[in-house]
Amino acid sequence: MKTLHDIGEDALISMLLENAPLPEPPDIGPGDDCAVIDAGGDALLLLKTDTIVEKIHFTPETAAFRIGWKATARAISDIAAMGGTPSHVLVSLALDPATPAEWANELYKGIGDCLRTHSATLAGGETSSVPAGAPAVITISATGRVSRERLILRSTAKPGDLLLVTGTLGGSLAGKHLDFSPRMAEAQWLVSHFKPTAMMDLSDGLAKDLPRLAAASHCGYILRRENLPLSDGCTTDQALGDGEDYELLLSISPHYYGELIDTWAEHFPHTPLTLIGALTRPGLGDEPISGGWDHFA
Amino acid sequence: MKTLHDIGEDALISMLLENAPLPEPPDIGPGDDCAVIDAGGDALLLLKTDTIVEKIHFTPETAAFRIGWKATARAISDIAAMGGTPSHVLVSLALDPATPAEWANELYKGIGDCLRTHSATLAGGETSSVPAGAPAVITISATGRVSRERLILRSTAKPGDLLLVTGTLGGSLAGKHLDFSPRMAEAQWLVSHFKPTAMMDLSDGLAKDLPRLAAASHCGYILRRENLPLSDGCTTDQALGDGEDYELLLSISPHYYGELIDTWAEHFPHTPLTLIGALTRPGLGDEPISGGWDHFA
Repeated sequence: MKTLHDIGEDALISMLLENAPLPEPPDIGPGDDCAVIDAGGDALLLLKTDTIVEKIHFTPETAAFRIGWKATARAISDIAAMGGTPSHVLVSLALDPATPAEWANELYKGIGDCLRTHSATLAGGETSSVPAGAPAVITISATGRVSRERLILRSTAKPGDLLLVTGTLGGSLAGKHLDFSPRMAEAQWLVSHFKPTAMMDLSDGLAKDLPRLAAASHCGYILRRENLPLSDGCTTDQALGDGEDYELLLSISPHYYGELIDTWAEHFPHTPLTLIGALTRPGLGDEPISGGWDHFA
Repeated sequence: MKTLHDIGEDALISMLLENAPLPEPPDIGPGDDCAVIDAGGDALLLLKTDTIVEKIHFTPETAAFRIGWKATARAISDIAAMGGTPSHVLVSLALDPATPAEWANELYKGIGDCLRTHSATLAGGETSSVPAGAPAVITISATGRVSRERLILRSTAKPGDLLLVTGTLGGSLAGKHLDFSPRMAEAQWLVSHFKPTAMMDLSDGLAKDLPRLAAASHCGYILRRENLPLSDGCTTDQALGDGEDYELLLSISPHYYGELIDTWAEHFPHTPLTLIGALTRPGLGDEPISGGWDHFA
């Protein structure tokens, strides 16, 4: 009898999706950073859900404020990567009844701080107990909005497009995974001035996420490992595999690469934007890279 | 240091909501079965999140198909109680990597079956591991739609309105809590023909939920315990306190009570609709009733 560990996360998701009715075009269902719902209005509705678990995404010693921030920022990072802005968040808490009430209060302060920073609101939530001693589980569900012309998918890149990443990669567990700022300003600026042909946020490590973007766009890829922007003290393998970078991976047409890099440096002088490779026709790129975060494998 | 157990679920939620920015009118945030978002279109957007936890809402022996059905039906029941219909669902799974893949597959079959039954689709999801041996946690986030004139809140009842419930109450743990059908057809029929002045679904037991509806509407209440429609073999205390009934509690103007009861019986001959009391001016009703489900207390 095969377990989730045996089949891994990507195969599990493919299997599960066989069982449920999925949205039909023009709506976009599972497979991108968010679902995209076209309700006929000016703006499209973005939908995201994301769960963090004690002892997996944070430790029992982690300050509750930072856990609340992280849970919320993860969902907002996915909305940013679609070109959108967040609107409403729902919080589902599953907690041991012996949890100090002040811990939950601090958690919500972190959630509230992240929502205020991004002009979003808390629309609702739910609380449940877990059995005594079981880990805390926090699920954030978020809605966002994006106008039709600003929407960016991960499936619309073309062979020949250049691959870039924001920030630096690797070593997130040293602290950034709790305190990161979703790349909202950067994503909004990109969409307005140099709209990427595809974009996604990096949550499971470039080694897992780059092949996902390439596959969604029916492309191969060439990765220049020597170009990877490494976080302080990190190796290339860590940059590829640590995960939780919450940076943007994007593809652009080579025609305006030079202008983008010059203008970017003026607007975001403290955030690197680095050319790390290019997309190719399917079958012509690198051999598959290994590594990255899989929850089950 | 006070724990969640010390303060209980309702006080916890009040405390937490102090920390986060909430939606402003015309949007409706926390406090009803769903949040209500007015994006300017014809229909209002309903948002709901709901979590079920192994050993709390189901046992390790429960068939995964029934767990998936239950998780989905709980969220749809809340949408029904607002007068709405479900649109899109997101699923967040937190599972032990040692879980059999077929268990997850059966869970999704149950989710898919419930979605098809209610013409809704799966828009996305997320998977996470939990530490070895930790309970499974399944969170369903759902969107729904309701036209402005069909929206029903729990806060709009008036003193003098009559209180009714669908179905029978109590004993849900004998099986109904896993296999119930959300009262979607009944809610839609009520909205079209005898729009209730207020409505909610009964998930924590009438003893918990009736005071919530009355308080939201700034009313007291008189409950006729001898009128409660008891499930087979159940006592009045069980009908008040067991919870997980997933029935509708509604208030209507006394003027059309007779016509409603007669017409209801023609349309829903197998589902009782029972007069259980009335709303009063604040301070004039019964003493508070005790019992009902509190996750923490």
